[in-house]
Amino acid sequence: MTGDGEPGCCSDLRGQEKGWCCRRETLREAPLLGDSEGLGLAPHLLGVQMEQHASHPNEKAKEESNAVPLCRAKPSPSFINLQASSPPATFLNIQRTKLPSGFQDVHVMVFVGFGFLMAFLQRYGFSSVGFTFLLAAFALQWSTLIQGFFHSLHGGYIHVSVNSMINADFCAGAVLISFGAILGKTGPAQLLLMTVLEVALFGINEFVLLNLLQVKDAGGSMTIHTFGAYFGLVLSRVLYRPQLEKSKHRQCSVYHSDLFAMIGTIFLWIFWPSFNSAPTTLGDGQHRTALNTYYSLSASTLGTFAMSALVGERGRLDMVHIQNAALAGGVVVGTAGEMMLTPFGALAAGFLAGTVSTLGYKFFTPILEAKFKVQDTCGVHNLHGIPGVLGALLGVLVVGLATHEAYGEGLGSVFPLIAKGQRTAMSQAMYQLFGLFVTLMFASVGGALGGLLLKLPCLGSPADCQCYEDQVYWEVPGEHEDAAQGPLKAEEPDTQA
Amino acid sequence: MTGDGEPGCCSDLRGQEKGWCCRRETLREAPLLGDSEGLGLAPHLLGVQMEQHASHPNEKAKEESNAVPLCRAKPSPSFINLQASSPPATFLNIQRTKLPSGFQDVHVMVFVGFGFLMAFLQRYGFSSVGFTFLLAAFALQWSTLIQGFFHSLHGGYIHVSVNSMINADFCAGAVLISFGAILGKTGPAQLLLMTVLEVALFGINEFVLLNLLQVKDAGGSMTIHTFGAYFGLVLSRVLYRPQLEKSKHRQCSVYHSDLFAMIGTIFLWIFWPSFNSAPTTLGDGQHRTALNTYYSLSASTLGTFAMSALVGERGRLDMVHIQNAALAGGVVVGTAGEMMLTPFGALAAGFLAGTVSTLGYKFFTPILEAKFKVQDTCGVHNLHGIPGVLGALLGVLVVGLATHEAYGEGLGSVFPLIAKGQRTAMSQAMYQLFGLFVTLMFASVGGALGGLLLKLPCLGSPADCQCYEDQVYWEVPGEHEDAAQGPLKAEEPDTQA
Amino acid sequence: MTGDGEPGCCSDLRGQEKGWCCRRETLREAPLLGDSEGLGLAPHLLGVQMEQHASHPNEKAKEESNAVPLCRAKPSPSFINLQASSPPATFLNIQRTKLPSGFQDVHVMVFVGFGFLMAFLQRYGFSSVGFTFLLAAFALQWSTLIQGFFHSLHGGYIHVSVNSMINADFCAGAVLISFGAILGKTGPAQLLLMTVLEVALFGINEFVLLNLLQVKDAGGSMTIHTFGAYFGLVLSRVLYRPQLEKSKHRQCSVYHSDLFAMIGTIFLWIFWPSFNSAPTTLGDGQHRTALNTYYSLSASTLGTFAMSALVGERGRLDMVHIQNAALAGGVVVGTAGEMMLTPFGALAAGFLAGTVSTLGYKFFTPILEAKFKVQDTCGVHNLHGIPGVLGALLGVLVVGLATHEAYGEGLGSVFPLIAKGQRTAMSQAMYQLFGLFVTLMFASVGGALGGLLLKLPCLGSPADCQCYEDQVYWEVPGEHEDAAQGPLKAEEPDTQA
Repeated sequence: MTGDGEPGCCSDLRGQEKGWCCRRETLREAPLLGDSEGLGLAPHLLGVQMEQHASHPNEKAKEESNAVPLCRAKPSPSFINLQASSPPATFLNIQRTKLPSGFQDVHVMVFVGFGFLMAFLQRYGFSSVGFTFLLAAFALQWSTLIQGFFHSLHGGYIHVSVNSMINADFCAGAVLISFGAILGKTGPAQLLLMTVLEVALFGINEFVLLNLLQVKDAGGSMTIHTFGAYFGLVLSRVLYRPQLEKSKHRQCSVYHSDLFAMIGTIFLWIFWPSFNSAPTTLGDGQHRTALNTYYSLSASTLGTFAMSALVGERGRLDMVHIQNAALAGGVVVGTAGEMMLTPFGALAAGFLAGTVSTLGYKFFTPILEAKFKVQDTCGVHNLHGIPGVLGALLGVLVVGLATHEAYGEGLGSVFPLIAKGQRTAMSQAMYQLFGLFVTLMFASVGGALGGLLLKLPCLGSPADCQCYEDQVYWEVPGEHEDAAQGPLKAEEPDTQA
Repeated sequence: MTGDGEPGCCSDLRGQEKGWCCRRETLREAPLLGDSEGLGLAPHLLGVQMEQHASHPNEKAKEESNAVPLCRAKPSPSFINLQASSPPATFLNIQRTKLPSGFQDVHVMVFVGFGFLMAFLQRYGFSSVGFTFLLAAFALQWSTLIQGFFHSLHGGYIHVSVNSMINADFCAGAVLISFGAILGKTGPAQLLLMTVLEVALFGINEFVLLNLLQVKDAGGSMTIHTFGAYFGLVLSRVLYRPQLEKSKHRQCSVYHSDLFAMIGTIFLWIFWPSFNSAPTTLGDGQHRTALNTYYSLSASTLGTFAMSALVGERGRLDMVHIQNAALAGGVVVGTAGEMMLTPFGALAAGFLAGTVSTLGYKFFTPILEAKFKVQDTCGVHNLHGIPGVLGALLGVLVVGLATHEAYGEGLGSVFPLIAKGQRTAMSQAMYQLFGLFVTLMFASVGGALGGLLLKLPCLGSPADCQCYEDQVYWEVPGEHEDAAQGPLKAEEPDTQA
Repeated sequence: MTGDGEPGCCSDLRGQEKGWCCRRETLREAPLLGDSEGLGLAPHLLGVQMEQHASHPNEKAKEESNAVPLCRAKPSPSFINLQASSPPATFLNIQRTKLPSGFQDVHVMVFVGFGFLMAFLQRYGFSSVGFTFLLAAFALQWSTLIQGFFHSLHGGYIHVSVNSMINADFCAGAVLISFGAILGKTGPAQLLLMTVLEVALFGINEFVLLNLLQVKDAGGSMTIHTFGAYFGLVLSRVLYRPQLEKSKHRQCSVYHSDLFAMIGTIFLWIFWPSFNSAPTTLGDGQHRTALNTYYSLSASTLGTFAMSALVGERGRLDMVHIQNAALAGGVVVGTAGEMMLTPFGALAAGFLAGTVSTLGYKFFTPILEAKFKVQDTCGVHNLHGIPGVLGALLGVLVVGLATHEAYGEGLGSVFPLIAKGQRTAMSQAMYQLFGLFVTLMFASVGGALGGLLLKLPCLGSPADCQCYEDQVYWEVPGEHEDAAQGPLKAEEPDTQA
């Protein structure tokens, strides 16, 4: 063990630390870490059913299993090979398997954030929160299988870990973005069918981008936001309802439903840095991503307030803008957040995203419906579509500018292929651009396919006059407690005296 | 310091790491770690008052105090004895005393989760959230004393730590479960008296199960859920109100109160894995618990939605089911979550729990009131009672199937007595079953006793016609802002121009 | 590497660990860690623009940059000098740069806590949550510059890190406290101008107290609460509106707005320990702070409920007290929380703070308006002002009682100057007292200045009859969904069949 920056040691540690943290890196590098032959030595692990595999008393298995019966990537063997006599290995193994601090932040975003953000409709709060709950719980399970099939199938077993749960959450996020586009116009059976299809396509698209094209997209500007938004928008186009104005009077908020929606907004805002940084490399990369995301979000909040007042009638702010466009800053740094964006770059990108998104809500959403026949309930085109594409393009730009000088030895963790000399910065940028194109293709074709499927009459789509209405699917209580409140006021006895 | 799995080194480290994490393990193992004699050498620490004891400048004291002036378990001495020259000791000491990442997740569940979950009643939101706040804050303090007396009384001092705070939160959880059974029918003085009694009994029951019977129950299927539910249900039976239909019109929700309740549901859902895994062994055990809990929760959510639609009128979903039964998956893996349940087992258990819980809400709650004269406001029997008992039985099953082969070297951390050969898997399973029986006894007798105490007339119970009503205990503002809204609309001047 | 408590080793590690954790300590000690000459060797880093500086391929730069391209304090060089051959250095470097577990807790407090706490007004929820969002996002950016200028300007660059983000959050907290005093009576332009001024003064005051006077104030009883409260109160005095009774009918809550406010209260309560402990020394100090804060908060909750019932009409509780005074326990241990307050001391301080704060809401707020012409909308004088001053005085007391015997070797981390013999406990206590005085001066002068600035007519202050009203600044939807609800009930077709 020589110096601080000794490459051999350092890369090993990085690999090990990645065990629970690096979403995509780990997936690709797992074989390099002796994972496959380790499993080859444990032939009783073969099978096709997903299963937690236990520790084994024999010595060889102990080495691997000591680390992570549940964790997919098992770095111990190679680590031990290199540094067999190093005591800290043991410590870090134990250390490493602590639950990561941001473990449940992504869950908060998916379940609280998306759920309440969509609860802005006056009569669709139950469905917004409830169907988010249903779809996310279903997507978690289905995506664990799909992503596991693509990324962590070893010897016939899908390996699960906290990591796979986070990745499944990301997929659930994409599903909920698509849900936002068709909110209020579809029933639960349709939504579940959409989830079945979208999770599968998400897995394929993610595999193509991250594993085949080796594109960088930690926070998912492309894989999550662009994919989810355009999948949902195309699907909404196919399901276009010319008679939707019959339900138009319910397609707005009331005072307290806007406050519920702000719960979603604020929790999304707070935990977005965890979302973007969860799959990045521990250490520098993660800190950089968190800070870039915060700066971008702060700037997009300011940009949104400013623009909303500018375009509002008599300078008034619009809750729709604040609830949504303020978050565009998190979307736009999804790809570039882990790169050397610099705080100034993050602020500029966030401000631009907030501004563009607000303008989109004000001017483009009506055009989208009138001209393109896309009824986008939550305006996902403005919050996820455009900022996602902008984020992908920002990624292309920042990747193209990557130099050894700017990243130093950190280049290897952010751009392993450039560091190894297999790609130039420019060619990596071209791959990024191609990744965006692939994502748009998958999303459009998938959305069209999904729309056709969801038109099946047996799926119980609500009638045009019943959109945005909980009563179709929920037992809905009355609105006011006045009747109940009356009697007591009359007598008002005091039992405490 | 030899290999990766060298027992001497490994067990030491595990003991040390447990310092802040393992609720019950640490309590029992603390004396083994030289804790008692360490304190014996510091005679000035004797006393009966709870107190933070400080670091001391003399050399002997330094060794112990360097680790944890506030932490109960002080593993340093024995660790240092064994590995006096090992530098990592210092690092890990510092490392270990970081605040654990899931430190406040349990607080979120207790205060936000339970508080808002019970806010579903149309006119009892203040009391639900407010009394939860009061009872939990009181239970935290009282339980720190009670649990400290049983678990961390050394030399006349109760040692406190982040750990004792988490344990006290668990106790507060049981109190709030009981609160759910009698929600709306008791005043704050009654509730505080109930807390005094229940916290004490909880401490005794927990001591009997975990220390005397050496039962495994990390997530508290028995000690928390079964105990809290049946304590509250028996108490509610004793306080049976035949005339309760006078307040029946207030015993339902309104639209926005159901949304507030969903805040509670979602936060409970998200942080339940922290709840179950907080007291488990760091590393494998904790990851396994978190994943099993997530899978179980996901499946119970799906089961609940499916069953709610099946039994609902015209296929409609019922918010009561979604808010509550979806959480049954967390309860049912409270005991078995840290064991080799496998993802498939967790999914099956969760689906079963969600289904049974939903059916309980639909069919059994009315029977419970009509036949057994138990008025269970929140349906804790369906959410905590039955799933808790099922969880305990699942634990019996999984414990009975435990083999050295399945757990490997992890057996020692999950079942120390089996690993040491002091018990067979089958005898441990019998102990588990006996633990459930003991819990039901304690809960029933305690609940009956509590009910009799709460009947004392001086405690200010609300009248039958005043149940489920905030106005009895709170200054309640009006419901509508229309009056206030009117005038401004008339003039509508614009000062921004 | 000798023993466990060997000073040379220990202080080094502490310095290293402080990298992301110790707010103020690090700032002062950074130059000692070879930071400045490290930067001197990288002349291309000179400049005045804030910028993330990258890793550099040359050997010297690698040593420093390996640790933290984004982290301000770069402890590696000095650490490596002392322990060049120690392998764990590498591990801890990586370890250290994990995102701290309580990283986003402070964000939750600022955005969710303050935002919803102020949403209690019936017609000012949009502004409370929305302007909190705006001001906090702006203060984060502006404070990063201001605090960076005072604390982390090296070689013309402001160094940013997760740490600087937490510090900026603290500053945003002070701004939001001041916002609470003038809530409902100011427009967004006024609030932004106030933020510009207050952030700058906050930075200066903090610099004077923590760096020049070397005052201890981890949780900000002085720098955050006292400063924010009296800044806002003096500002409110200058902006006194004699005709405010025109809007008096809107200056109260409705049923559901009080529940929204409880969301804020509960999240503030839960995460307050993170707030107080974030800048303390890792390990003992942080645990002690968290526990003291919890005990204090629990006691203040009990004190508040008891006192609210005592002074309430017919023993009824008042939501205003519960929402606010229950939090006074967190404020009062802001200074003394990291010291040897003992659990009993924390409980006593918290109980006192809760009681005093409740009495303040009941009796002093009306006097404040009638006699002192200070219209304190949220009662920040009772929640932050008085408890903040009490907390500062409690700090004076506890500092004055500090002895080597009580703190042992921990004295160096809590009171470095006393440990080094540069100050006696009594002189440090006098410095603390002087710090309180300085804070009150800065707050008063700053608030007066701010009030005069905010009187500028171009800033769009709302008219007296338009205070506490969202419609002035927001597009506000209607209140009821009845109209929308009606039609569907009539037809009620079922598309699911």
